[in-house]
Amino acid sequence: MAVTVVGSIAFDAVKTPFGERPKMLGGSAVHFALAASFFDAVRVVGPVGDDFGEAEYAVLHGRGVDTADIEHVAGGQTFFWSGVYGWDLNDRETLQTDLNVFAEFEPKLSPDSQNSAVLFLANIQPDLQRQVRAQCADAKFVALDSMNLWIDIARDSLVAAIEEVDCLILNDAELRQLTTAPNVIRAAREILSWGPKVVVAKQGEYGAVLVTPGGFFSLPAYPLEDVRDPTGAGDTFAGGFVGYIAAHLDEPLSDELLRRAMAYGTALASYNVEEFGTERVARLTLQEVDERFRALQQMTALPA
Amino acid sequence: MAVTVVGSIAFDAVKTPFGERPKMLGGSAVHFALAASFFDAVRVVGPVGDDFGEAEYAVLHGRGVDTADIEHVAGGQTFFWSGVYGWDLNDRETLQTDLNVFAEFEPKLSPDSQNSAVLFLANIQPDLQRQVRAQCADAKFVALDSMNLWIDIARDSLVAAIEEVDCLILNDAELRQLTTAPNVIRAAREILSWGPKVVVAKQGEYGAVLVTPGGFFSLPAYPLEDVRDPTGAGDTFAGGFVGYIAAHLDEPLSDELLRRAMAYGTALASYNVEEFGTERVARLTLQEVDERFRALQQMTALPA
Repeated sequence: MAVTVVGSIAFDAVKTPFGERPKMLGGSAVHFALAASFFDAVRVVGPVGDDFGEAEYAVLHGRGVDTADIEHVAGGQTFFWSGVYGWDLNDRETLQTDLNVFAEFEPKLSPDSQNSAVLFLANIQPDLQRQVRAQCADAKFVALDSMNLWIDIARDSLVAAIEEVDCLILNDAELRQLTTAPNVIRAAREILSWGPKVVVAKQGEYGAVLVTPGGFFSLPAYPLEDVRDPTGAGDTFAGGFVGYIAAHLDEPLSDELLRRAMAYGTALASYNVEEFGTERVARLTLQEVDERFRALQQMTALPA
Repeated sequence: MAVTVVGSIAFDAVKTPFGERPKMLGGSAVHFALAASFFDAVRVVGPVGDDFGEAEYAVLHGRGVDTADIEHVAGGQTFFWSGVYGWDLNDRETLQTDLNVFAEFEPKLSPDSQNSAVLFLANIQPDLQRQVRAQCADAKFVALDSMNLWIDIARDSLVAAIEEVDCLILNDAELRQLTTAPNVIRAAREILSWGPKVVVAKQGEYGAVLVTPGGFFSLPAYPLEDVRDPTGAGDTFAGGFVGYIAAHLDEPLSDELLRRAMAYGTALASYNVEEFGTERVARLTLQEVDERFRALQQMTALPA
C-alpha cells in the first residue's frame, strides 16, 4: 500500500557511555523508513545537502526505500544534531543543532508520494505537517509525531495538525504536557476527542501504551542487557508500527491488528538501540524481527 | 500457610492535588497485611504507641489480620510520616518523619509468627531484617523490600540480608543504585547471583517486572484515570504478590504461579491508589480483585 514519511534526514554525532560516532546517518525520516521497510514500500521526503552521498543513499536503498523525493539542496549542508547520553540513558543533553538545509524546507511531494495510502508526519514544525497532510488528501491512514518544543511554541498549530490525523504517537510526558491531564489515560482520551482514532504513548525504556475509543493495550520494551545508543528508537518504533498497519490496510483497523503493530514497532526499536544509529537495523532480517515478536508474546503472557 | 510481616505501622499525613488526610492509618506492614489477607492468614509484627487505638485495630481485624504481635509501647507515640505529592504523583516530598516508638524497635516474634511458612521483611533497617530472618529459620519463602536510604548508609548489611532471602522486591532505580548496573535486567541478574531466586523490580506507574534465573515477565500497572494517593502502593503490591505465593506454597514456584502473583499484586495496588491510605482496600472484595486480574489479562494479551 506504500508509506510516505516526511521528516528529518540528518547526520548525528552521538556519545554514550558505550561508544561514540562523530558523524552517522540519522534523522526521524531515516529511522522510520528503515523500520517500515520491513512491511511495506516506503518513500522518504526531506532535504539533504552536499555532504549527503552514496554511502547514505546505500543504507536506504539497502532496505529498498524509495529516495526519489529526497531533495538535494545544492551548496547546502545536511541537518546536523549532536548529543551526549549519561550512564542513565534517559539523560540526554543536546550539544548542537544545525538546521542547515532543514531551515528552509518546504515539503514538495511528487504525485507518487502524495498517493501513498499511508502517511507519517515525523516530528517537524506543525504547520509544515499540515501542508503535507493537505497534499495527501486521499491517504487512508495518517500518523503524526511531535515534540515538547512545538507544544511550547506552536501549540495551536500542533492541535490543528493533530485534529487532521488518524493516529498520534507521542512520548507520555509530552502527552501530559499537551493536554495538562494528570495521567496518560486521561491525556489519551482527550486527544481521542480531538479526532484521532488511535493514540500511542511512548514510554521509553518502559515500552508503550495504545489507547483507542474502546481499547487499551500496554506493551513493555523488549528487555536488553546492552543498550548502546537510544537515538532513533522512537522513530524506529513508529516505523514498525505504521509500516505494519500499512501492510494490512485491507483489513479493518482492529484492536488485534493494532496490538501486533505495537509489538512489531517494539521489536524493531529494540534492535535499533543495540548499536549506534542505523547500524543494527540496516542489516536486520525479518526473521529476527519475528523472533523478537514471539519473545514479547512469551514475556507478557499472563496465564489464567 | 500463613504470612508474617515485620515492618512499620504508622500514621501518615498526606496531601496530594486530589485531597489530604491529616492523620490516617499507614505503614508498610499495614498496607502489606491488608493486601496479603485476600489470599492467606497474615500476622503483623511491629510497634505502636498510645495513639494507636480501636479504630486502627478495627481496619486490620476487618480483613482478618492477626494483630497479637503488634507491640504496644506504653507512653510512646506511633511512627509518623508526613508528605506531599505534586501534580506529577511521582514527585513526592517528605515533610516530616518521626520514628517515635520505631526508633527502639527490636522485633520479638511469637512462636506462631516464627512458624509462618512465609515471611515478608518490609522496609526496615537491614540488620533488623536479618534478626527477624534468623528467628524464622524454617520459613519456606522469604521476601524482602528496602529503600535507597539503606543502600546509602548500610549497603553491606543490606547485601547480607538479601543473600538470606528468596525474593527481593525493590524499585527499579534502587536496584540500579544497589548494583550499579546500567539497566534493570543486568541489575536483577546480579542480585540473582547473590542468592535470591526471584527479583521483582517495581516501576511505579509503569508496572513491575519479574526476573528469575530462567524467566522474565513484565506487567504494566492497571491504567487509572483517577489516582488520589500513591502512598502504600508498593507495599500493597508486595502484599498481593507474596500473599498469593503463600496461598500456593504446596505447588512448585513456577513461572506461571509467579506471573499470577504479579497480577494479583498489581490489581491490589491499583485499588490502593484510588483512595487515601487504606480506605479503598479496607472495603475491597476478592471479586473486585479478580475482575481487575482479568482486565490485566485482557489489556496485555498480544495476539499471534
